[in-house]
Amino acid sequence: MLTIYGDLQSGNCYKVKLLFSLLGVEHDWRHIDVVKQETKTAEFLAVNPNGQIPAAVLDDGRVLCESNAILGYFAEGTDFLPADRYLKAKVYEWLFFEQYSHEPYIAVARFINKYLGLPDERKAEYESKQAGGHKALSVMEQKLSGQPWLNGEQLTIADISLYAYTHVAHEGGFELADYPHISDWCQRLAAQPNYVGMS
Amino acid sequence: MLTIYGDLQSGNCYKVKLLFSLLGVEHDWRHIDVVKQETKTAEFLAVNPNGQIPAAVLDDGRVLCESNAILGYFAEGTDFLPADRYLKAKVYEWLFFEQYSHEPYIAVARFINKYLGLPDERKAEYESKQAGGHKALSVMEQKLSGQPWLNGEQLTIADISLYAYTHVAHEGGFELADYPHISDWCQRLAAQPNYVGMS
Repeated sequence: MLTIYGDLQSGNCYKVKLLFSLLGVEHDWRHIDVVKQETKTAEFLAVNPNGQIPAAVLDDGRVLCESNAILGYFAEGTDFLPADRYLKAKVYEWLFFEQYSHEPYIAVARFINKYLGLPDERKAEYESKQAGGHKALSVMEQKLSGQPWLNGEQLTIADISLYAYTHVAHEGGFELADYPHISDWCQRLAAQPNYVGMS
Repeated sequence: MLTIYGDLQSGNCYKVKLLFSLLGVEHDWRHIDVVKQETKTAEFLAVNPNGQIPAAVLDDGRVLCESNAILGYFAEGTDFLPADRYLKAKVYEWLFFEQYSHEPYIAVARFINKYLGLPDERKAEYESKQAGGHKALSVMEQKLSGQPWLNGEQLTIADISLYAYTHVAHEGGFELADYPHISDWCQRLAAQPNYVGMS
């Protein structure tokens, strides 16, 4: 049975859960608690030497890590990843944007605020994440002003990946009311058949 | 004619140049100077609203951004990206690792040290990048202790992507002499036919 090691409080893990729900992929979910450092045990490091979740163990025992690589693997051959070479590359463009220009700001600000309770010693770091997060949201807002999904007329894993931390961005101090097209996009995604929420 | 906007001092741009050289892809290279803020001009933002290089403009005028998405696009159908679904996903696993766990440490430490001259006000940031950079190098070293390339017996864009900042990691304070398997891997890559150096 396909096994996912993850923590649904993490957007990187939730995005995999969301794709699996939309696609109807059966799997066994093993809870790994990040805050309790369960990604640092010898047992987990044997699965992923980089000590990060999510990690997928396929039916045949082979391992696949990195949330967006997992999305790409399971979306291949479905409507969530175009077969056309250029359109597929444009989906990956958003996936790399998510990990480099979005997640390091919005997910980290959310973690410091929601899970650590915004302690004084990390307040400067929290503040330093705001500008980058707003820049990423602005890029998305501009794109979504002219089309329903990030890659055009078709919902893809680019939307699923970016939705994960965007729809809870307020928990990191980012008010989505300032981004009306993103707000509409979040509602469109949450209205999909078989949608599942974050926890 | 295929056009790349980039700056060869940036590993993210160089990795595209290196793949094009190994594959023999003809292109027009337009120099964009990051330090002179040429990524922030209205002209460039019309190409990439995220204001980052490299950016590719294909023959037909369509744009593709994010260095690793560009690598994936041009490697499709070549030996540098396996056709097998799982093996391809494993290449993307390394590409996401590169942008999330490697580049933000090693490239940023290098930028602060080499291009800004390690000014006092950024020394703490430089120091804060060392642990993450060494962690990323350790993950690579472990993998390369048992196989010649990151994905096994075949050189792929995972190697090209990670080589870009790894082979100049000493410019960010990371001594590769401490990583003998990475050092050997760098030599193997530099010995490839049509290899081109960073600048």
